[in-house]
Amino acid sequence: MPTQVTSMLGSPDAERVSLNQRTTARWSVTEAVDGCCRAGVRWIGLWREDVAAVGIETARRAVDAAGIGVSSLCRGGFFPAAGTAAFEARLADNRSAIDEAVALGTDVLVLVCGGIVGDLTTSRQQVADAIGTLAPYAGERGVRLAIEPMHPMYCADRSVIVTLRQALDLAEQHPVEQVGVVVDTFHLWWDPEALTQVARAGARIASYQVCDWLDPLPDLLLGRGLPGDGVIDIAAFTDAVDAAGYRGPIEVEVFNADVWERPGDDVVADVLATWPVAVLGRDR
Amino acid sequence: MPTQVTSMLGSPDAERVSLNQRTTARWSVTEAVDGCCRAGVRWIGLWREDVAAVGIETARRAVDAAGIGVSSLCRGGFFPAAGTAAFEARLADNRSAIDEAVALGTDVLVLVCGGIVGDLTTSRQQVADAIGTLAPYAGERGVRLAIEPMHPMYCADRSVIVTLRQALDLAEQHPVEQVGVVVDTFHLWWDPEALTQVARAGARIASYQVCDWLDPLPDLLLGRGLPGDGVIDIAAFTDAVDAAGYRGPIEVEVFNADVWERPGDDVVADVLATWPVAVLGRDR
Repeated sequence: MPTQVTSMLGSPDAERVSLNQRTTARWSVTEAVDGCCRAGVRWIGLWREDVAAVGIETARRAVDAAGIGVSSLCRGGFFPAAGTAAFEARLADNRSAIDEAVALGTDVLVLVCGGIVGDLTTSRQQVADAIGTLAPYAGERGVRLAIEPMHPMYCADRSVIVTLRQALDLAEQHPVEQVGVVVDTFHLWWDPEALTQVARAGARIASYQVCDWLDPLPDLLLGRGLPGDGVIDIAAFTDAVDAAGYRGPIEVEVFNADVWERPGDDVVADVLATWPVAVLGRDR
Repeated sequence: MPTQVTSMLGSPDAERVSLNQRTTARWSVTEAVDGCCRAGVRWIGLWREDVAAVGIETARRAVDAAGIGVSSLCRGGFFPAAGTAAFEARLADNRSAIDEAVALGTDVLVLVCGGIVGDLTTSRQQVADAIGTLAPYAGERGVRLAIEPMHPMYCADRSVIVTLRQALDLAEQHPVEQVGVVVDTFHLWWDPEALTQVARAGARIASYQVCDWLDPLPDLLLGRGLPGDGVIDIAAFTDAVDAAGYRGPIEVEVFNADVWERPGDDVVADVLATWPVAVLGRDR
């Protein structure tokens, strides 16, 4: 493992790697930052509950001391709510998330928009309304709301926003510096027009996340694959995202119960070892 | 239960109900036909392996003697294959399926197009090629190939055709009497443009299948819901399919391990009891 890590250290290929905390879910924020340092990873994607567990100040100090950038904060969203008071509470929580992004020094807040409350049409309208309300608040603070279209199998319980086309239709109603989109290979790979919509997205791409689809899928939520372990042509997405002009970090975000059982350093080493081929397509 | 069934017997609402065999998977073809007779259901959707288990002649005699129509035969497809010989074998099997549809007196062969073999792009091309090859053969025999776009969570292992738009893009390359599409609520409900594409489909609609999405989803394959038990606005699909001009049977097709444990007569009674509201939207 150390050999594999060393081979990527300082390489231009490795510069854009970002470790989303959910790939090494057992690590606290500070443990994950330390892990990134050991492996030479320069970016991290943080989660609000993990940040809260150590405190925002501690988290910020840890990334600053390590010289690591925060590529995104997960997650705002879950907008559909029953009744005005509940909806307002969701908006308030999202304003807090925007403030937390500022405090952590990242300009990307990932939105998992929320599943169905009541009916699908109303839920989708609530998402649109919430983003309209929050976009200026985010923009004034230098944070971009990044709408993440999620796999349609999560439409009922996690995100009524399910395609990149739909996310862009929403995002384009707002200034580009206020609202962008997340391109996540796990959520989008099946869509015949995914790459066309990535091209359309252009400067709307606020975050690019990589994750593979295992076949058969071991579990709806915790059965995702490390890049290279599944059926997705991730390198084709990377090419498309590059061609669309995105030059930011590439987050590896893999919810997988088996991966979580492994030592975090081993997981990070595997990610770096497979990165040039699985994510960047260097074998072509 | 008998009261509920009686309330639908002879009702115009019940005339279009079709029992897809997979809803009462433990019943043989002849048992399912008998069950339809007891409940006053006039249509059945058959599966090739169940037909093979009793023999085509027996199956045909059973439906004819009962005066029941065969709304569709499931399933042709699974076109992606490694190499020419394997692909030709798939075509041969599909020609057999077309012949079986003729022998059973149905004009609809449902296509579950198949998952990824090799890579996604090649697999999708093989599906297009296979349909192009088979369409005239089907048309000459009075059978329509009905492309079923399936939920994207099955893209890797069951169907690289995942949206109604994609299915129609394929179907429209062929005469309408040769190639149509299946509108199945379970597979399409999440798609923001589902109802728009149903309107586009018009006379291409060869089959309309209803099934609900349970939240949370108990199982990827065997966790589907009876109409009314989940989050899908099935009645909105029924309205859209009606407006598109489809006047044929409506198949209830529900893969659910718990439903399969129940007596078939009870399941059919439940379907008929909930049909007017859950499928036809009579409460509006």
